[in-house]
Amino acid sequence: MTKKDSLTGFYKENEELWLWDSTPELGMELGFQVESLLHFEQSPYQEISVIDTKGFGRMLVLDGVPQYTTKDGYMYNEMLAHVPLATHPDPQRIAMIGGGDCGPAREAMKYGSLRHIDVVEIDSQVIDVCQKWLTHESFLQRDSRVRVIIRDGYSWIKELSEPYDVLLIDRPDPFGPAAALYSDEFYAHVHKGLSSDGMAVFQSGSPFYNPQLLQDTVSQAKKLFPIVRVYLLTVPCFPGGIWSLTLASKKWDPLEADTRRLQWQDAKYINPDIFRTSFTLPTYVKQLLSDHL
Amino acid sequence: MTKKDSLTGFYKENEELWLWDSTPELGMELGFQVESLLHFEQSPYQEISVIDTKGFGRMLVLDGVPQYTTKDGYMYNEMLAHVPLATHPDPQRIAMIGGGDCGPAREAMKYGSLRHIDVVEIDSQVIDVCQKWLTHESFLQRDSRVRVIIRDGYSWIKELSEPYDVLLIDRPDPFGPAAALYSDEFYAHVHKGLSSDGMAVFQSGSPFYNPQLLQDTVSQAKKLFPIVRVYLLTVPCFPGGIWSLTLASKKWDPLEADTRRLQWQDAKYINPDIFRTSFTLPTYVKQLLSDHL
Repeated sequence: MTKKDSLTGFYKENEELWLWDSTPELGMELGFQVESLLHFEQSPYQEISVIDTKGFGRMLVLDGVPQYTTKDGYMYNEMLAHVPLATHPDPQRIAMIGGGDCGPAREAMKYGSLRHIDVVEIDSQVIDVCQKWLTHESFLQRDSRVRVIIRDGYSWIKELSEPYDVLLIDRPDPFGPAAALYSDEFYAHVHKGLSSDGMAVFQSGSPFYNPQLLQDTVSQAKKLFPIVRVYLLTVPCFPGGIWSLTLASKKWDPLEADTRRLQWQDAKYINPDIFRTSFTLPTYVKQLLSDHL
Repeated sequence: MTKKDSLTGFYKENEELWLWDSTPELGMELGFQVESLLHFEQSPYQEISVIDTKGFGRMLVLDGVPQYTTKDGYMYNEMLAHVPLATHPDPQRIAMIGGGDCGPAREAMKYGSLRHIDVVEIDSQVIDVCQKWLTHESFLQRDSRVRVIIRDGYSWIKELSEPYDVLLIDRPDPFGPAAALYSDEFYAHVHKGLSSDGMAVFQSGSPFYNPQLLQDTVSQAKKLFPIVRVYLLTVPCFPGGIWSLTLASKKWDPLEADTRRLQWQDAKYINPDIFRTSFTLPTYVKQLLSDHL
């Protein structure tokens, strides 16, 4: 393997293959032992690989960064999808930007009120790879409520016509093309794309090593939405574990949600108590948000 | 540096020094970028080093495993010490096994009712190194309530005479001599070493990658204590982040504690809401404890 051909993040050490996920802001690297490299392809946007790992089951990796694992991916997907869908009393039309692994869509479909789910993903090859290697049921084809839109999230949201009740913004970190998903204009488009009692959830980064990202998300959302709530979860394969999501709502407050609506029966992370307590912040997170919330 | 002389876990890569913390059960390695190696000594028990890291501030490392960092060490220390000390209505005599970095003792001393704190540490050199490199105030000498006992925790607890209101069992993972701190006999000695309304908190491992350790802790404690409660926190430098502590109590239930007793004014992690909600478990943790709690 010449250097040019090697996959980002993968290195062989004493006959073992490891994936290294680097977080320079934290001076930290996470290494995952690879049992087998099942699939690799290069899309116009990124390197897509699927591996079986020793500790995290099967893993989707984009440009060397773990995106989803079968052992802990449900944690993020459940918290992203269920919190807004149980907060809104009657979500019918929803959309998600990103989430090509389709985990959040699968959770969303547990809400019987939903009539329509748009999954907006820039890279069709991510969806194909996930369908083949990670999702046994190819429900995207079978469930007539779901429509997959292969498009850049920013250009899609700029041109929305019919509003949504819930938008899930499962954006990657703000590098390259994804930087547009952190601009003031983007938040304005999200606000405009929501119905009069709609809400959005934004991936807002690690409160431990990237507080600025969370602070900016909250500040930008506060300019437009009367209700902005930060909630936390711990995903073991994410650097440092602790992660934030920020819910911005025009009308409904998750702190006053009727958690009997929560469809948590088959869930492995969320339950009514976790729904409520995920909004409780350790003091170091409260302090970094004290001028922002 | 010959191989024999090299420090466990430390490797140089492209002129950068890194500390690698390996978790074989999880097929995971955590790498921490080292800015400088401040101190090293070999004690009869272990390699003790102090480093400045890029992302976690100053770090105490024992045999290559991070023990305490100035950037996230308070999270564990606060949750270990404050939860039992605020649950007990009048803690006067307490002791801790381990905790040579003295962080938990510093938190405990915020409780005005305390008359006596025994810090039991097997390795006097750990205490000396922490006093010199990590703790600016050498309060252990100055506060007459604190007594340091240099002794193996198991042999110490076997021979206790006067009982304690609270015992903090900050034990390392069950390898080598520490395995005794996980035996049924040890739990019996802890129970016997507590006053009639006393309680103990046990380090009980990662619920994500070491569920057996948590299950065993709960099962062993349940045989002796009427009240056993598991609570969680996320420490970014621990593998996977999520960690468990198990409180075993003869009389007082933390779920019914009067959190006005919590001395959280200077704390950076715990506050009254975190105290209460740390006992809320994600479903995957509830499920692994369903036959045990």
